[in-house]
Amino acid sequence: MNYRLVIGRLGLLFGLLGLVMLATAALFAIAQSFGVRRDPDFTAVLALCIAGGVGIVLAGLGWLIHRNAPGYLGRREALLLVAMSWLLGAALAALPYWVWAHLNTEHVLHPFRSFVDCYFESMSGLTTTGATVLSDIEAMPHSLLLWRSLTHWLGGLGIVVLFVAVLPGLGVGGKRLFNVEAPGPSPEGLQPHIRETARYLWYIYLGLTLTQIMLLWVFTPLDAYYSVCHTFATMATGGFSTQNASIGAYAATPAVDIIVILFMVLAGMNFNLFYKIVRGRGREVLRDTELRVYICLLAGGAALVSLALWMSPDAITMTTGDEISSTAGAAIRQGVFTTVSIQTTTGFATSDFNAWPFLAQGVLVMLMFVGGCSGSTGGGVKVIRVWVAFKILLAEIEHIFRPHVVRPLRLGRSTMDIDLKLGTLAYLIGIIALFVMGSGAVMLLEQLNDASDCTYTTAATATIASLCTIGPGLDQVGATQNYGWFSGPSKAVLSMMMVLGRLEVFAIIVLFSPRFWRDV
Amino acid sequence: MNYRLVIGRLGLLFGLLGLVMLATAALFAIAQSFGVRRDPDFTAVLALCIAGGVGIVLAGLGWLIHRNAPGYLGRREALLLVAMSWLLGAALAALPYWVWAHLNTEHVLHPFRSFVDCYFESMSGLTTTGATVLSDIEAMPHSLLLWRSLTHWLGGLGIVVLFVAVLPGLGVGGKRLFNVEAPGPSPEGLQPHIRETARYLWYIYLGLTLTQIMLLWVFTPLDAYYSVCHTFATMATGGFSTQNASIGAYAATPAVDIIVILFMVLAGMNFNLFYKIVRGRGREVLRDTELRVYICLLAGGAALVSLALWMSPDAITMTTGDEISSTAGAAIRQGVFTTVSIQTTTGFATSDFNAWPFLAQGVLVMLMFVGGCSGSTGGGVKVIRVWVAFKILLAEIEHIFRPHVVRPLRLGRSTMDIDLKLGTLAYLIGIIALFVMGSGAVMLLEQLNDASDCTYTTAATATIASLCTIGPGLDQVGATQNYGWFSGPSKAVLSMMMVLGRLEVFAIIVLFSPRFWRDV
Repeated sequence: MNYRLVIGRLGLLFGLLGLVMLATAALFAIAQSFGVRRDPDFTAVLALCIAGGVGIVLAGLGWLIHRNAPGYLGRREALLLVAMSWLLGAALAALPYWVWAHLNTEHVLHPFRSFVDCYFESMSGLTTTGATVLSDIEAMPHSLLLWRSLTHWLGGLGIVVLFVAVLPGLGVGGKRLFNVEAPGPSPEGLQPHIRETARYLWYIYLGLTLTQIMLLWVFTPLDAYYSVCHTFATMATGGFSTQNASIGAYAATPAVDIIVILFMVLAGMNFNLFYKIVRGRGREVLRDTELRVYICLLAGGAALVSLALWMSPDAITMTTGDEISSTAGAAIRQGVFTTVSIQTTTGFATSDFNAWPFLAQGVLVMLMFVGGCSGSTGGGVKVIRVWVAFKILLAEIEHIFRPHVVRPLRLGRSTMDIDLKLGTLAYLIGIIALFVMGSGAVMLLEQLNDASDCTYTTAATATIASLCTIGPGLDQVGATQNYGWFSGPSKAVLSMMMVLGRLEVFAIIVLFSPRFWRDV
Repeated sequence: MNYRLVIGRLGLLFGLLGLVMLATAALFAIAQSFGVRRDPDFTAVLALCIAGGVGIVLAGLGWLIHRNAPGYLGRREALLLVAMSWLLGAALAALPYWVWAHLNTEHVLHPFRSFVDCYFESMSGLTTTGATVLSDIEAMPHSLLLWRSLTHWLGGLGIVVLFVAVLPGLGVGGKRLFNVEAPGPSPEGLQPHIRETARYLWYIYLGLTLTQIMLLWVFTPLDAYYSVCHTFATMATGGFSTQNASIGAYAATPAVDIIVILFMVLAGMNFNLFYKIVRGRGREVLRDTELRVYICLLAGGAALVSLALWMSPDAITMTTGDEISSTAGAAIRQGVFTTVSIQTTTGFATSDFNAWPFLAQGVLVMLMFVGGCSGSTGGGVKVIRVWVAFKILLAEIEHIFRPHVVRPLRLGRSTMDIDLKLGTLAYLIGIIALFVMGSGAVMLLEQLNDASDCTYTTAATATIASLCTIGPGLDQVGATQNYGWFSGPSKAVLSMMMVLGRLEVFAIIVLFSPRFWRDV
């Protein structure tokens, strides 16, 4: 294992994060000097500067260690780098929160006084989960909230580049699942192709982001700052909002809902499809199996949830606390928004689905597991895996009574090979095993903590919401609640669930295999 | 599809069930004429006679239809026969309950007035689940309770013969999982080998049953009747007791616990192993992978549960309602009994694990899914499948960072082939999908029924307890509760879960495939 090389690349990441922090701080300092949107609490800008400085110093140290390091980035080095990028990157990204809470004695009771809480928040950001420990988000300084939204956006960009450009070449996460251009190159030859694909992805991601910012800014009452923050959270399918009531705070403006729904759907699509559209191959996109299943699931789920809401005699409680009657219009608006937000694993909320009828909740929890498309910023097990598993099950059933009939399973135009089938089913079982272990661990840790009366539903949905990078769950982690009340160890477990789910498990789990660390 | 042949074979089953009913009735009539253990409610004996008569008549009709039917029992016919044996056999086995409740106007409020309840009870018996709709079991006539225990015993015998002797030849349920003697014969050549194996299994099952009856009768205060009833429920890993407090009614006699624990463990073992012992190949048995994992899981589970009980400050509530302090001795006795009862999917209870700490409950619910060994009377997904899935996951992890290293996975002395791997994972995913659908359906049906306030935990554990043929679950279906309060549709869904789990899903699910019914 070439550790020096890995450390060197990590240094680059730290440097990048540090620069973004410094840029954010500079932006607010400049705005302040012009008297625009002054952050009442200037310690936040200071905290960003300090954390940014730490990032730059770490980058320098990394460069010193890396300097003249021999060799190339092999498969194991790349895997280690990916895992460490998120695990250590989240620690650096948590620093502004922690420094801010310690710079001011007023914040002695603030959750960010505890580093575990800061780490949870920044891991939730970078993994595009959107679960928060904050109970009063609106009381936070604007510069820190912008940094919080930026962690989403950076994490989302990292995931798309990783899963569309980098990992397929390494054969991780089932490269055959991603309908990618890249042939599987040898580790040595990896660089040029990755660079080109990554550049295209960056343009697409940036283009979509700028479009949504403009739409929100022009067509809704949101100003530039709020447009930017909510766009970052949408494009990354993250879910952090600047408002305590999430998108529900803009209930008076349906245009916000419509724009956010549209871009959540886009962000849950395979970014490779946009690349194809740019290349003028839109026809192929329409034939994409995963996209079709994704749209069908969204439409079917939204229809079921809306129907359940409409038939229910109860009023719909908004995240603002207002109650509205469940007319057809309101049911459709809340049903569609929530279904899209949950399946794309964004986690924005307009109404409190904690009180919804079981049919609606059941559909939402199932869609949580499914998640977005492969190669998107969405989490979950990905639409394509669910589809592959479904086809395998159907084939297995026929195999029982017609053992001699062999029908090759097709995925679009190609035939599924046996490794793809086995890998997909193993992944699903792995996720379910992680879900069970995670829920069990949270339940156990909370029961050891006498102050807590965590319910089974809470532990289970908090774990799904973390593993599938959604954010809100049910019961005590519902749309209007937060994760701040969990004990420190539970927050650590949930942070690990986020990164495991985000990096499709195996990229993290290999670190626990003794054979991974052994050379040869 | 040769329907006449299937109907003819079903007739044989109905005739057998009818004869057993008549024999039970005769036994009680004779005992009554000698003045021994008179059933106070003679209508039960009459009900058994009537239902037995119906069985004989159906057998006659089957013979008339079948007479001179051409052809042999092919794969599809065998699958249909297996499915119908349980689905229709349960209807016939439910008849004594229903007739009894309707013979006497006193029972106008008895659950057995509803045929769905009777069907649930008899399906629970034949699938060796042990979930009951009865709240006061001790008020039932002894002859009906003996019939109820007999459904367990017959169902258990049927399952062992089916899965060790019949299905492996048909390639259903993964014949490679069962370390069987039988080579896969062609459908025509199936009969002789099946007959021989089935005869051996019958001797083993009968031998174990007689041994347990003698042990209970001689070494404990239980008389012949109670020894027989509880032995039937133990050997089938069923769980029906004649007492409201289940085995907890005999808390004063540790010998009952010990004998029942021993025979539950034996009943959860692959019956093929006993066959090997009889053939003088005991050495092979000790090397059996599944047996080793099974024993380790039982020991580890019992240790964890006992530890959780011992560390808990709460007293242990027995099924009789008594409270005992959780001393080390009490914790071990209750922990071991409950763990063995749950993992073997028997479902006998001595204490109310509804109030146990989460660690104990979590371990129990996980072991519910695992269940007994393949080729045993136990339910669940079977130890061997969990073991195979575990090995595949480990191999997949190594595959990520060493894609060129191919290690053949071994199961005992043989290598797992790809069909075995894929089939095992597909089965696990199928069971989980069924669990989710079943819990959802129960929850939905109960929510449509205004009178019910079924919790998520109840719906989920009732579904597992049915699918894995255990019996008691948690919350409103806990060890001291029953299933009587569920609405009719929910009972129907749970009955289907039992038969799906018992016949390893695919044998039932093929019936829903249009291709199954199409000739060629």
